[in-house]
Amino acid sequence: MMLDRVFKAEGNEGGSLVQPLDMMTLLRTLFPLPRSLTGDGVRATLQALRQHISVEIHEVATGTEVFDWEVPREWNIRAATIKAKDGRVLVDFADNNLHVVGYSVPVRGTFSLMELAAHVHTLPDQPDAIPYRTSYYAPNWGFCLPHSLWTAMQDEAYEVEIDSALVDGSLTYGEFFIPGDTEQEILISVHVCHPSLANDNLSGIVVATALARYFLAQPARRFGLRLLFLPATIGAITWLATNEARLDRIVHGLVLTCAGDDGPFHYKKTVNGAVVDLAAEHVLRHSGHAYQMLEFSPYGYDERQYGSPGIALPVGCLMRAIHGTFPEYHTSLDNCDFVTPQALDQSFRLLVDLLVTLQRNAIYCRVDGRGEPQLGRRGLYRAIAGQKEAGGASQMDLLWVLNQCDGSRSLLDIAERAGVPFSRIRAAADLCLDAELIREVRQ
Amino acid sequence: MMLDRVFKAEGNEGGSLVQPLDMMTLLRTLFPLPRSLTGDGVRATLQALRQHISVEIHEVATGTEVFDWEVPREWNIRAATIKAKDGRVLVDFADNNLHVVGYSVPVRGTFSLMELAAHVHTLPDQPDAIPYRTSYYAPNWGFCLPHSLWTAMQDEAYEVEIDSALVDGSLTYGEFFIPGDTEQEILISVHVCHPSLANDNLSGIVVATALARYFLAQPARRFGLRLLFLPATIGAITWLATNEARLDRIVHGLVLTCAGDDGPFHYKKTVNGAVVDLAAEHVLRHSGHAYQMLEFSPYGYDERQYGSPGIALPVGCLMRAIHGTFPEYHTSLDNCDFVTPQALDQSFRLLVDLLVTLQRNAIYCRVDGRGEPQLGRRGLYRAIAGQKEAGGASQMDLLWVLNQCDGSRSLLDIAERAGVPFSRIRAAADLCLDAELIREVRQ
Amino acid sequence: MMLDRVFKAEGNEGGSLVQPLDMMTLLRTLFPLPRSLTGDGVRATLQALRQHISVEIHEVATGTEVFDWEVPREWNIRAATIKAKDGRVLVDFADNNLHVVGYSVPVRGTFSLMELAAHVHTLPDQPDAIPYRTSYYAPNWGFCLPHSLWTAMQDEAYEVEIDSALVDGSLTYGEFFIPGDTEQEILISVHVCHPSLANDNLSGIVVATALARYFLAQPARRFGLRLLFLPATIGAITWLATNEARLDRIVHGLVLTCAGDDGPFHYKKTVNGAVVDLAAEHVLRHSGHAYQMLEFSPYGYDERQYGSPGIALPVGCLMRAIHGTFPEYHTSLDNCDFVTPQALDQSFRLLVDLLVTLQRNAIYCRVDGRGEPQLGRRGLYRAIAGQKEAGGASQMDLLWVLNQCDGSRSLLDIAERAGVPFSRIRAAADLCLDAELIREVRQ
Repeated sequence: MMLDRVFKAEGNEGGSLVQPLDMMTLLRTLFPLPRSLTGDGVRATLQALRQHISVEIHEVATGTEVFDWEVPREWNIRAATIKAKDGRVLVDFADNNLHVVGYSVPVRGTFSLMELAAHVHTLPDQPDAIPYRTSYYAPNWGFCLPHSLWTAMQDEAYEVEIDSALVDGSLTYGEFFIPGDTEQEILISVHVCHPSLANDNLSGIVVATALARYFLAQPARRFGLRLLFLPATIGAITWLATNEARLDRIVHGLVLTCAGDDGPFHYKKTVNGAVVDLAAEHVLRHSGHAYQMLEFSPYGYDERQYGSPGIALPVGCLMRAIHGTFPEYHTSLDNCDFVTPQALDQSFRLLVDLLVTLQRNAIYCRVDGRGEPQLGRRGLYRAIAGQKEAGGASQMDLLWVLNQCDGSRSLLDIAERAGVPFSRIRAAADLCLDAELIREVRQ
Repeated sequence: MMLDRVFKAEGNEGGSLVQPLDMMTLLRTLFPLPRSLTGDGVRATLQALRQHISVEIHEVATGTEVFDWEVPREWNIRAATIKAKDGRVLVDFADNNLHVVGYSVPVRGTFSLMELAAHVHTLPDQPDAIPYRTSYYAPNWGFCLPHSLWTAMQDEAYEVEIDSALVDGSLTYGEFFIPGDTEQEILISVHVCHPSLANDNLSGIVVATALARYFLAQPARRFGLRLLFLPATIGAITWLATNEARLDRIVHGLVLTCAGDDGPFHYKKTVNGAVVDLAAEHVLRHSGHAYQMLEFSPYGYDERQYGSPGIALPVGCLMRAIHGTFPEYHTSLDNCDFVTPQALDQSFRLLVDLLVTLQRNAIYCRVDGRGEPQLGRRGLYRAIAGQKEAGGASQMDLLWVLNQCDGSRSLLDIAERAGVPFSRIRAAADLCLDAELIREVRQ
Repeated sequence: MMLDRVFKAEGNEGGSLVQPLDMMTLLRTLFPLPRSLTGDGVRATLQALRQHISVEIHEVATGTEVFDWEVPREWNIRAATIKAKDGRVLVDFADNNLHVVGYSVPVRGTFSLMELAAHVHTLPDQPDAIPYRTSYYAPNWGFCLPHSLWTAMQDEAYEVEIDSALVDGSLTYGEFFIPGDTEQEILISVHVCHPSLANDNLSGIVVATALARYFLAQPARRFGLRLLFLPATIGAITWLATNEARLDRIVHGLVLTCAGDDGPFHYKKTVNGAVVDLAAEHVLRHSGHAYQMLEFSPYGYDERQYGSPGIALPVGCLMRAIHGTFPEYHTSLDNCDFVTPQALDQSFRLLVDLLVTLQRNAIYCRVDGRGEPQLGRRGLYRAIAGQKEAGGASQMDLLWVLNQCDGSRSLLDIAERAGVPFSRIRAAADLCLDAELIREVRQ
């Protein structure tokens, strides 16, 4: 019974939540680290997170078979420049790690403008932005630069150097687990393979870290909370392959990305429908924020892997801006100015609300469901009156719980039917538990 | 097979139904009786009904345990007045039994205006109306009076007397049963605890009585018809507790209230969905009256008790005006002028229609469903042609029945799919029964 | 595995389909033949079809019991005229076989204008059109003529002759079957009992014949394709009665009628819902043609018999104009000018699309569904890129198939969820089959 109460003191209606982490400062710290699918940039990122939560860092060797894939070679880069013949440095990886195509093989030499052109990526429609490009599985090299700079480069030849290494090594990912009172878990997955891109997905990384700090501070919880900090696709596949026997512990899950822009929220539903979809829509509807529910599609983030046919975990995806649809997406404009502390804070609070809803949702039945109980002699009318003044459960909430708890409906189902926030039905259920009018039905 | 025909001669399309009872006269007779949760007012009401139907009067002793409750003490009141010091009677229970708060404890003495104020209830927004107030479970006393009278009372002190008794006795309720050809029953429940309030719920009482008279005059019926005349909440709980072993006989049910005002009909659905919901919507849609379907909520009338988790009977609620939403509600304005004979008659006819629909709904299957039968050699084309001229079943109705009777759909389902009134599909099914083209599937 | 490929080369997006039959010429050939419920007109029609497909002609003797019916007597007519007293032929069956009421008994004699009037049918609202009338089951005779002609007939008496015979004989119907690789079949049913009416239903007959020619030219198919050319009602009942033991082979079916007018398409759903309904709506939605889905009703064509309770085959009805709702319906205006080659061609292409969709729809599951497969090393990205340029399957189609093939969903279900034409998902599935990423789940 105590399990049902651990979040009771917290409330989940925002207003007084103290952020356990300065998310914006952490985001700025992580921004310049040269992340990629593998390599020291990912390691440095995870080490930085360890200032806040004790992330476990896993290394999986190149060549390891993971389902249909193999862990790729590890890529690291020390420096990269394009210099004019007079020695002026025109493009420098040290300025912005988007300048080099991810997984570029080493190169050094003099290239004609025509030769260089085959290795240069720009955005003619956004002439001052650097694009983000990778070539993970085809050996190649390239530079990304503002179109305005490229059109000004009229010399016949340039000195080019990419001091990178693509060698057997390992794939690195982070994992952090807060145990619950049951063996069941909620999964939060964020990708850590993008270099200097703030919204996609440093925002997801810092909000996930803040959530971990927040729930660590709670005395207990029903479900364990598992956070994964992974390179996209191959990272999720690697984790799934190495944890396949334990996947049935995951009862709810979320991929978290683009949590830092000021746009409306978007929740993309799980592939087969799940309670997390219902909970997300419920929390969003009562949040006061603009939002849109998106149907599942097989393109996007790692919900594709978690929702693949043989895995079929109930993992949705929460985001604000949608990949590919905002001008800053995968360009140098997705920088620390594009992300706001207010947006990160809203995302954090919304996720606390959603996770508390998932943690505290349960199915009850009336101990004696034959008619309404006499509330007066149990002091429940008084309790209600008092709580009503405090904005808590009203008499209707109590009647909803007493009428609907028949062992078939969860509190979230009841909140949806009653049209009120989950927290109110939860509070009413707590009163009924105290009065021994309902008991939990374990499924 | 005969069971299927008992209502055949009746039709349920209104127009020629003779009312078996002068509902308005009965309502006026019942109006002044001092009803409350218990006591002689309820007994007098049930005795008055016995002029029309032989209601069985049950007495359940104070202190009897009924589920989570106990039957309360019995309350009776002989007289109550507020007098000016000069002896003028300002407020007299004999004028209107709303003047005294229900379950007021006895009191006699001189009270200052200030002291009296703590025991006076008025409606400042409706200065000429007397409110209806009770204090069933907290010992108290009080008077209800028009705000206009109260503001005119400027004397320093008043003589107050409530000659009431709150003692061990019994709770009284009435029950009337018309047997059917099966053990299954339809339940109609009305509350009898409100004093001089005409729409809420003398209208329900008189319409229920008229329905009983009407169906008594029919030769037979599939389901028994059980009418309950109960004090709200504690009465329903008492009946449920004392009839628990037989509740599975109830296959359809209705709480009936506020049946006498001129407003649109409202049907509040059962807690878990039931055939009565479908039938009510069907009958209302084809009635020509304005109506609205209401979702279930756990506040209202005794559908709360019938629909509580451990009981879960399929009991909806039919009403015209909705409790709490019309100005006359729970005031002296809900008097005999607020109720009209036309409205009572419409409610009665609609309920006859609904009850006939529930009684005559059944599931059939084609005796030989392989293709359409040859109707011509059975004279069914002739029969159809004849009936069509009389406004009865058309050829399409017959085709619907012959095509849809596959043992899975009821006639009501077929009427809904065909988009025609139940009575037409029923008539077509009767022709098919006569021709031995369909047979009933007992479930 | 080969079964899945047989339609692969075909595509079903129209544009380059060569019609295997000059439908308009066949329709003009069939138009004057004196079809009726039975008789030589039906035989001549089926013989004419045998110029194109080897229709098997069945004869079922008068008096044969078929379910609730008996095969009627056979009707043939050699000639019929109304002559003026001066010998002028005013009405001649040789001019239009609608002139005589179907199943008219023989008659010869002089009739006064008044006597003749009882046997004359006209359309006052369409004074130049000849109506179509029959009297199959009541012995009678009659003439159908333009109202303008009838009002001009002012002589006192006329010479009337109908040289017909109504004798024991047989009911004639045609059947044509193209075997499939399984025992399961798709049924196409058209009625052949209407005399000189072009849209209703020579259009259905010629489109069905063209479909047979088209699918005969294909190397293989999953389901057999069975075409029935039947007199309406009694023909369908006769076929069902004589094939009852084999009906469970029918997995999809269509009644085809009114396929030659220029109006929008209408698809009337099967009585209990079926895959053919989903497929028809899918194909219509992606066809670019105007269309409307109609709910099942028990009036119409032989879908009534196929969908009767004890038969319950999944047979819908595809038509353009709806019986009874267009002015040419059942009049001499439903002639060869009312039908256009363009409309017949559209209907033919749409039905090819629908039948290919039904044939090639199947359920697959991922061979290893744990995560997305690595497409690059299988050349699937290249394959996709190439196909995309050719307008074929895009990368999204491939991702949909790889994500959704979990053994529970058909390719049609996936196409509906993805919002793309079936042919694209089918093409993506073929790529996945080639790469051994999915395998079929037989049900």
